[in-house]
Amino acid sequence: MIPKGFKVGGVCAGISNKKGKKDLSLFISQTPAQSAAMFTSNIVKAAPVLIDIERLKKTNEISAIIANSGCANACTGKLGFQNALEMCEKVEKKFNLKKGSVLCASTGVIGQRINLSGLPKALNVLTDIAGTSAENEKDAVLGIMTTDTIIKKASRTIKIDGKNISIWGCAKGSGMIYPNLKTLHATMLSFILTDAFVEAALLQKILSQSVEQSFNCVSVDGDTSTNDTVIALANGQSGKKITSGKNLDIFTKAFDDITLELAKAMAKDGEGATKLIEVEVKNARNKNDAKSIASSIALSPLFKTAMFGADANWGRIMSAAGKAGVDFNQQKIDIYIGGLQTFKKGAPIKFSEKEAKKSLLKKEIKIVFNLNSGKASSKYYTCDLSYDYVKINGDYRS
Amino acid sequence: MIPKGFKVGGVCAGISNKKGKKDLSLFISQTPAQSAAMFTSNIVKAAPVLIDIERLKKTNEISAIIANSGCANACTGKLGFQNALEMCEKVEKKFNLKKGSVLCASTGVIGQRINLSGLPKALNVLTDIAGTSAENEKDAVLGIMTTDTIIKKASRTIKIDGKNISIWGCAKGSGMIYPNLKTLHATMLSFILTDAFVEAALLQKILSQSVEQSFNCVSVDGDTSTNDTVIALANGQSGKKITSGKNLDIFTKAFDDITLELAKAMAKDGEGATKLIEVEVKNARNKNDAKSIASSIALSPLFKTAMFGADANWGRIMSAAGKAGVDFNQQKIDIYIGGLQTFKKGAPIKFSEKEAKKSLLKKEIKIVFNLNSGKASSKYYTCDLSYDYVKINGDYRS
Repeated sequence: MIPKGFKVGGVCAGISNKKGKKDLSLFISQTPAQSAAMFTSNIVKAAPVLIDIERLKKTNEISAIIANSGCANACTGKLGFQNALEMCEKVEKKFNLKKGSVLCASTGVIGQRINLSGLPKALNVLTDIAGTSAENEKDAVLGIMTTDTIIKKASRTIKIDGKNISIWGCAKGSGMIYPNLKTLHATMLSFILTDAFVEAALLQKILSQSVEQSFNCVSVDGDTSTNDTVIALANGQSGKKITSGKNLDIFTKAFDDITLELAKAMAKDGEGATKLIEVEVKNARNKNDAKSIASSIALSPLFKTAMFGADANWGRIMSAAGKAGVDFNQQKIDIYIGGLQTFKKGAPIKFSEKEAKKSLLKKEIKIVFNLNSGKASSKYYTCDLSYDYVKINGDYRS
Repeated sequence: MIPKGFKVGGVCAGISNKKGKKDLSLFISQTPAQSAAMFTSNIVKAAPVLIDIERLKKTNEISAIIANSGCANACTGKLGFQNALEMCEKVEKKFNLKKGSVLCASTGVIGQRINLSGLPKALNVLTDIAGTSAENEKDAVLGIMTTDTIIKKASRTIKIDGKNISIWGCAKGSGMIYPNLKTLHATMLSFILTDAFVEAALLQKILSQSVEQSFNCVSVDGDTSTNDTVIALANGQSGKKITSGKNLDIFTKAFDDITLELAKAMAKDGEGATKLIEVEVKNARNKNDAKSIASSIALSPLFKTAMFGADANWGRIMSAAGKAGVDFNQQKIDIYIGGLQTFKKGAPIKFSEKEAKKSLLKKEIKIVFNLNSGKASSKYYTCDLSYDYVKINGDYRS
């Protein structure tokens, strides 16, 4: 359900080579919303990312997000920068919004010029059709999809002091997925809308902490994009303000649920993925160690191909853990694959290969790597590495 | 050509599941040789690596290397450690070598126990057949191969003060290739033999510098193995000592040529590889920056799949460079793919896709990423990411 005071929609603007599919989406608030955002840590930042960073230095009050797919508008020189700016300015003009109050985002092929000739007509259509229906929701998400095969959206409605507050989020992301989002400086795109009033600074804090345990714990291929962008908008139209205490806890919990649901959906829909893999590292000395080891396992192509082949090759899990740069005592390690223990206190144990195969043929697989050395833990989400990953990326541009 | 005073050989010892193929190799010197070695930086080190590290703390005089394939003897607990020790000790006994003067190395599946029941018989056979013939050379390399499809060996004969000195090296490595070799602490295996006399400390210095520009500049999949090992032996049987000056330069040049030739052969024979890719980063501010960017490009699955598809998708090169963690000015970048410029001073330029495709269908591809910001450069070697990589690794154990 789209939160109060927001409208969303998606159309085909012919902006890229998506050949008749929706490639332009609008997320707009009736009234200026408090905003928070995170962008890619890649040194090479796409034009829309640079524009957003500039704009957010001047204001936290944002009214709309215009986002396109099929063309990343990255590495496109000065003209690309002008194009991104033009996208924002045309939306401002069309909807009578304050100058500087529109953010933009792009995803798709790097280096191609964006074709804005259809933008005026597309904005006319969006003026007419953008709304809050289930179809609007779907269209808005379709407009930002590239190699995605499923629509990723999530929402929660919570009660604060008897009043309903809605939070709605969507995301795209299937390849070039290894977000490493820094505050104000993330090709997954995610937009989170809420009708709560949350001041920009607090919204940023909630977003940053939420991303750290969701989008920043997902990898499809270890390639951090030039365009990763997460934007949260809070327009206050529910009439309820979130500041501290129990209300903040309830809001944060719902917000975190949404980002985690979207992050897991991204991993599950990774390019060529046949299964979702959760890697949990338990009982590490500290959180950093746990996350480093979890990500090292989740990023290993050898581990990922073994998962594709439903092969309980736990040796690759040990090897990937060992290259994480974290010192640990091999003699204390326990490894579980799909609930089945394969390695105990530093030595291999007998297990049923048949049972292991059965659990690895499921659509969701859990790996547990227990260091038995502390109390910190971390979960990381990824997918298997399949023939289709190679197929999809062997000739993406054509 | 095998250097003077060395014998090599390979047999099928039934040590693993290589099903009748050669899986045990011996490299032995008539007289104790000066040694230098480098091992994996993975925290999880295989039993043979741990044994070698222990032994090299006590002596630099090494007489033989016993190496097996098919079983990595990694993550095998105390028994694995005893097995590795047994391999060394059986060779010492059989060939009347000094206690502690034999090193061992293993490569293959992690976590499987090594089967040494056939070792005594295999050593009897090796006693008879090990030698210096072309067949011996071939057998010795075959005995350490796993998913390798080509035999990797290289040799040089140089003249020092009128005397011939030989250097011979071999290597195996096709998957789990991302060596990060640290002095005395590197599943590629490489053994380098020379009949020059080079004191252990100097040999270590030559080896360390040589590995830095060869094996440590190669990646197949970014997975650093638990077993990587490079050992150099110098037995002095040519009667010529290498110490300094011009002679050292000539020796070092030949040594470097061999490690680079072997390293490139590993990348070219990477699991599922259809082509060798050289990534050269030019005109960086310093060597570290150059190497970080080169390796980030070479390790990118999206870049590697594009190369498999012969797709001149230079945007992925920019994106991979940008995630290296090195700051650079996008506006100064030039990119060449197979000699064809695709990106000039921060903006895309028109190029013939047809011509690009033609050059990308070749067996060896050169990528140049020019930062135009300094004088340092670095080359990194990798292969494309193909369907066969997924096939080979989807069910490696069976």
